[in-house]
Amino acid sequence: MASSSEIGLAAGLNILTAFAFLVAFAILRIQPLNDRVYFPKWYLKGLRNDPLQSGAFVQKFVNLDFRSYLRFLNWMPAALHMPEPELIDHAGLDSVVYLRIYLTGLKIFVPIACLAFTVMVPVNWTNRTLEQSELTFSDIDKLSISNIPTGSNRFWTHLVMAYTFTFWTCYILKREYEIIASMRLHFIASEQRRPDQFTVLVRNVPPDPDETVNELVEHFFLVNHPDHYLSHQVVYDANSLSELVNEKKTMQNWLDYYQLKYYRNNQSKRPTMRTGYLGLCGKRVDAIDHYQSEIDKLSKEICKEREKITKSSKYVMPAAFVSFKTRWGAAVCAQTEQSRNPTIWLTEWAPEPRDVYWDNLAIPFVSLTIRRLIIAVAFFFLTFFFMIPIAFVQSLANIDGIVKAAPFMKGVLEVEFVKSVIQGVLPGIALKIFLIILPSILMMMSKFEGFTSISTLERRSATRYYIFQFINVFLGSIITGTAFQQLNNFIHQSANEIPVTIGASIPMKATFFITYIMVDGWAGVAGEILRIKPLIFYHLKNFFLVKTDKDREEAMNPGSLSFNTGEPQIQLYFLLGLVYAAVTPILLPFIVVFFGLAYVVYRHQIINVYHQQYESAGAFWPDVHGRIITALIVSQLLLMGLLSTKEAAQSTPLLIVLPVLTIWFHRFCKGRYEPAFVRYPLQEAMMKDTLERAREPCLNVKNYLENAYAHPVFNNECKWDGSDDGIVSDDEWPKEPALVATKRSNSRTNTPARSQRSESTRTLLCVTDERSCP
Amino acid sequence: MASSSEIGLAAGLNILTAFAFLVAFAILRIQPLNDRVYFPKWYLKGLRNDPLQSGAFVQKFVNLDFRSYLRFLNWMPAALHMPEPELIDHAGLDSVVYLRIYLTGLKIFVPIACLAFTVMVPVNWTNRTLEQSELTFSDIDKLSISNIPTGSNRFWTHLVMAYTFTFWTCYILKREYEIIASMRLHFIASEQRRPDQFTVLVRNVPPDPDETVNELVEHFFLVNHPDHYLSHQVVYDANSLSELVNEKKTMQNWLDYYQLKYYRNNQSKRPTMRTGYLGLCGKRVDAIDHYQSEIDKLSKEICKEREKITKSSKYVMPAAFVSFKTRWGAAVCAQTEQSRNPTIWLTEWAPEPRDVYWDNLAIPFVSLTIRRLIIAVAFFFLTFFFMIPIAFVQSLANIDGIVKAAPFMKGVLEVEFVKSVIQGVLPGIALKIFLIILPSILMMMSKFEGFTSISTLERRSATRYYIFQFINVFLGSIITGTAFQQLNNFIHQSANEIPVTIGASIPMKATFFITYIMVDGWAGVAGEILRIKPLIFYHLKNFFLVKTDKDREEAMNPGSLSFNTGEPQIQLYFLLGLVYAAVTPILLPFIVVFFGLAYVVYRHQIINVYHQQYESAGAFWPDVHGRIITALIVSQLLLMGLLSTKEAAQSTPLLIVLPVLTIWFHRFCKGRYEPAFVRYPLQEAMMKDTLERAREPCLNVKNYLENAYAHPVFNNECKWDGSDDGIVSDDEWPKEPALVATKRSNSRTNTPARSQRSESTRTLLCVTDERSCP
Repeated sequence: MASSSEIGLAAGLNILTAFAFLVAFAILRIQPLNDRVYFPKWYLKGLRNDPLQSGAFVQKFVNLDFRSYLRFLNWMPAALHMPEPELIDHAGLDSVVYLRIYLTGLKIFVPIACLAFTVMVPVNWTNRTLEQSELTFSDIDKLSISNIPTGSNRFWTHLVMAYTFTFWTCYILKREYEIIASMRLHFIASEQRRPDQFTVLVRNVPPDPDETVNELVEHFFLVNHPDHYLSHQVVYDANSLSELVNEKKTMQNWLDYYQLKYYRNNQSKRPTMRTGYLGLCGKRVDAIDHYQSEIDKLSKEICKEREKITKSSKYVMPAAFVSFKTRWGAAVCAQTEQSRNPTIWLTEWAPEPRDVYWDNLAIPFVSLTIRRLIIAVAFFFLTFFFMIPIAFVQSLANIDGIVKAAPFMKGVLEVEFVKSVIQGVLPGIALKIFLIILPSILMMMSKFEGFTSISTLERRSATRYYIFQFINVFLGSIITGTAFQQLNNFIHQSANEIPVTIGASIPMKATFFITYIMVDGWAGVAGEILRIKPLIFYHLKNFFLVKTDKDREEAMNPGSLSFNTGEPQIQLYFLLGLVYAAVTPILLPFIVVFFGLAYVVYRHQIINVYHQQYESAGAFWPDVHGRIITALIVSQLLLMGLLSTKEAAQSTPLLIVLPVLTIWFHRFCKGRYEPAFVRYPLQEAMMKDTLERAREPCLNVKNYLENAYAHPVFNNECKWDGSDDGIVSDDEWPKEPALVATKRSNSRTNTPARSQRSESTRTLLCVTDERSCP
Repeated sequence: MASSSEIGLAAGLNILTAFAFLVAFAILRIQPLNDRVYFPKWYLKGLRNDPLQSGAFVQKFVNLDFRSYLRFLNWMPAALHMPEPELIDHAGLDSVVYLRIYLTGLKIFVPIACLAFTVMVPVNWTNRTLEQSELTFSDIDKLSISNIPTGSNRFWTHLVMAYTFTFWTCYILKREYEIIASMRLHFIASEQRRPDQFTVLVRNVPPDPDETVNELVEHFFLVNHPDHYLSHQVVYDANSLSELVNEKKTMQNWLDYYQLKYYRNNQSKRPTMRTGYLGLCGKRVDAIDHYQSEIDKLSKEICKEREKITKSSKYVMPAAFVSFKTRWGAAVCAQTEQSRNPTIWLTEWAPEPRDVYWDNLAIPFVSLTIRRLIIAVAFFFLTFFFMIPIAFVQSLANIDGIVKAAPFMKGVLEVEFVKSVIQGVLPGIALKIFLIILPSILMMMSKFEGFTSISTLERRSATRYYIFQFINVFLGSIITGTAFQQLNNFIHQSANEIPVTIGASIPMKATFFITYIMVDGWAGVAGEILRIKPLIFYHLKNFFLVKTDKDREEAMNPGSLSFNTGEPQIQLYFLLGLVYAAVTPILLPFIVVFFGLAYVVYRHQIINVYHQQYESAGAFWPDVHGRIITALIVSQLLLMGLLSTKEAAQSTPLLIVLPVLTIWFHRFCKGRYEPAFVRYPLQEAMMKDTLERAREPCLNVKNYLENAYAHPVFNNECKWDGSDDGIVSDDEWPKEPALVATKRSNSRTNTPARSQRSESTRTLLCVTDERSCP
């Protein structure tokens, strides 16, 4: 157990590190050279221009205005300055709701910390248990529950505090849930027209011997939603096409580069290149002509491939995006069951077009349930047995192994210093690498499980990451030993012993977790704002790879709030805070500082850096809420276990009421607020429909939706103008009808035969539309 | 441990008892006197007439046709004779699906029993472990797993068998689920038009300062379901009216009785009566005139009360039955969320009118969640601590207590024989009374919880009864001790020890459960067919109370399959069968006999006796399926525990796979089949709508639905014709539109003001209807 001076030293060191990061950031961010690293969001929005374009040469790269160095911390108030509604406009609701997680942390822990310091610290401090015992102890332990003698009546304080903390946390949680639910509803209500409001994703279209998927979908919805069905878009298996398009994109980029080079040289000398491997060998040809012809060739191939895909039915997957005339129609279809066989014609809200994970759209129902089983088992083994392969790798990667594999290194490796460094570092490396790639492994698992949108994939990965962290970081640190050893222990322990075992070792680990919060939390957040990795990569790319403006855009790599790794990290702090609130309150200020710092830093990053890949309108909040509730229950159970070792027998049973009430509170919130996050009320839909009809009576929804859910590689014509790269970037999908004034004939004309009924219905529909609009 | 001869004796006794019951039934049922007890269903259907009306006097009461006594068991083939589709027509789908539970039991256990006897019995029998040990043992134990030496390789047989049994059970379960789901869908699809197909129950209508509930509901649905909304019926708090109507019913009955008496006496002497208490004192008046005037008075009061209720808004509860023009519209409304606040405008399928539990329609959302918490806690205490009050009552109701309370009994009570009888009986009586009223307690709990239909109430009570039986009968018999002691043990045992503790004592309890099956199962089922209680009550009522034909109808009391007590009983046998299948296979034949006998008996009862209160189209099957799965998992865990005590270490881990697979199977079935039981596919709705529109283009759905969901006491006019008793019996709610050709003006005219829009919409609607129908 570290003494308070050691903790003070660690705190000082970490504060210094964090401060150094912040100062470094403050200096780096005002250098014009780094402008694109620290303000990429404004570039993407087109609101900021390269400072490289004007001014003296040195000023292009280094900021020489010394007054600006004096105001080096002014980004902090600036970050806090933007009001929430503007922030929603600027960065989307997801980001704002994400920030509210930190804010919730502050709201929960600031009052709890104050209360704990005024009430519990004096109660703990004014005992002499530890001093009278023969144990070694530190000042920190004197502030904790350990300092209270066994069987003391003072434990009533902790009991009352546990109740207070629970009620306060629940109150804040309920209020936040309420606010975020109404923010979400307001956001959805005030949103502009979006294709996903009108569209439903239909999966598991049953095979039919007589009709193609295209016809089948059309007929099914014409029959079952006759007044609301508008159109649909079948899903194609376009992976091969996607590859061709990517290849063409590279070619296009090279062409741009050579053209730029040619114009820069005042069109004096046409650039040449070699056609062989990596441009190092082969015949020397005119580069512009070469790439032009390559692109033409690829364009033709793409057209052929595309035609093949759209013509042949074997590329059609049994899934479709079905669009409706009104939001009401879509809301109805998404929320109801279509067929008497509940495993076919599965409908769900279509994700935003940019949020769709195309590869998973065609997985049949039975396969889905089997995949879920496989992943559940795999995740169990990953969580509890991940140490086995790592230990195996570690046993291979020792000095002897290296000497055997590379005898020439023998001399170097036998130097004592090198040997000790390697032996110290190597075992950790395998684990470190594993922990770095863990989120990707979890993401792959989610992808294999068959979710159809990126947002769901991230949410599911976050859940798994949280469980992994809970077991391997939280429990793993408290009860040292691998997760499997713990599992084995738990199986062999009685249900009431488990909280006792963990609870009893909780106070002893406080100093460890304080250090963890400072290293992982404080320094981590300060490191986040510095963006070291993107900074280095941007400059490397800028020097070696950037050929065109497009390349520079791409080199910026603004990144995004990665919910699947970020949120579980925050949840760990909630867990620590709630568990230690009634045990070792000295931990709370560290948590509060973390939440405060993280809030400011992430607010800055969201305003200036991150560019979200999708907008789920805060759909992840139920998960966040559920995990804080879990943390609350865990803290109550552990306190119960701890108190029972302290022979505070008369107060322990009263604690049983708390988890029951908390679970009930969770169920209440689930019933009260969760539907706002998973369903779309018809009242809202009707309201928006009516408003829209009044505002734009002549709106042609069909045109608007026509290509919204085409696979990205289909989203352009076969006539290339040289600037279109075939991939629709995040912002390019149509937001207003005017943007999609495409004249392409209806994709449905590709289907061989159409029933008379559907034809006539649609004609009738058009007539009605036209008649009502003069 | 009972020896095999003791078991044989017990079996013989029970078989004799059961046989005696069956013979008694066979004789009693052919007596004309008992006709209404044993064939009430046919009377209710109007397909059977009283044998009392004709023939010789003696023949009216006793069957003198001796040939019929020779064919006394011919009801058995007769019961099996009716084919399933006819049975569905005759008794409804609920009854048929209920019978399938027994059939499922037979399908699961007959092959398992055969396999167990050919494979496992020889494996168990050919050991000499028990003979070599010093334990006392019986022949039954020699057939069980106890006879296999510790650590033997023969345990592989049991492992393989456990796998086989699991797969076989799952296969049968899946097949049954499939069949029943399709039966349900077919039943719903081929059903006649029913009001609940068009109607949705809306609860938690929000309070509005400007509009009454009536107006609010109309406006809300006119706005949000403009193309589908048809009409609605608000729910009134009509408890006071209900009382008046019941009072009038009694009066009416007396009037009928005196009128009958008068006509029987050839209208010679008008009957008289006294007006005082119980007709024993007071003025003597003309009975017919008296009741006539009382009825007139009550009728007026009822009319006044009814007017008061319909006029005053304070009797209107914030709930309504909203009807739609099409089944499609109702299906959409029932499955979607209406308002952005998910706790108001809650919609669900309306139950059948006869299935509605009126008292619970107005409970607000917050109150519902609190009630659920209270009941959850109460049920926990009921299950684990029910012995405490019973023990308290037992301690009061001892000899000393009685002597104290009634000193005059002292002489009698001090006789040794009487004393021992009372001391032997009294302690059991409190427990027995508790067990008899337990289903009613559970039902009250469900009612308090706020479910809105009788079918849901019964399903929920069944779940609770099952849990109670599982803990207090199954576990309580295996580990002797009260449930609370068990709970305490389990909390203090490790997770892997619990199955070991229970598993180890499983084989020892086989003989107990065999006796239990015979007493509770065999004799219980045979007693069921005898209907002793209804038989006695019918004859008592017939002698003392029956005044009119209507009274005799009511005295029949056909009863119904009470799902809330019957199904959990069956589930206990599934549990026993699955648990003992791999341990003591000798138990299986007893289970098979139970299922076979119960199947025949209940089939007979369903055909001839029971009259169902509601029709839920087999909505309870997911519960049944889930509980059999639970039993399967329990059996796997217990086998695992048992094998681990037998040091069959190498085979035990393989058993862990089974629960995982079983849980996965359950989830698969849940996803695959459960939606058919809780949602109504739009395809079906559309199909029925289209068919109906083609068959009856001039159908006026509005007239058809007008009074379908009025509170039963409203379902008649204020002009009394003397025969209507104000209560709509189960069969009287309208089945065909022709039956409800009421001319009463729309109930909506009672609301003070109506918006122009709704008026015009409705007018338009009528015009459309009329125009299309020449």
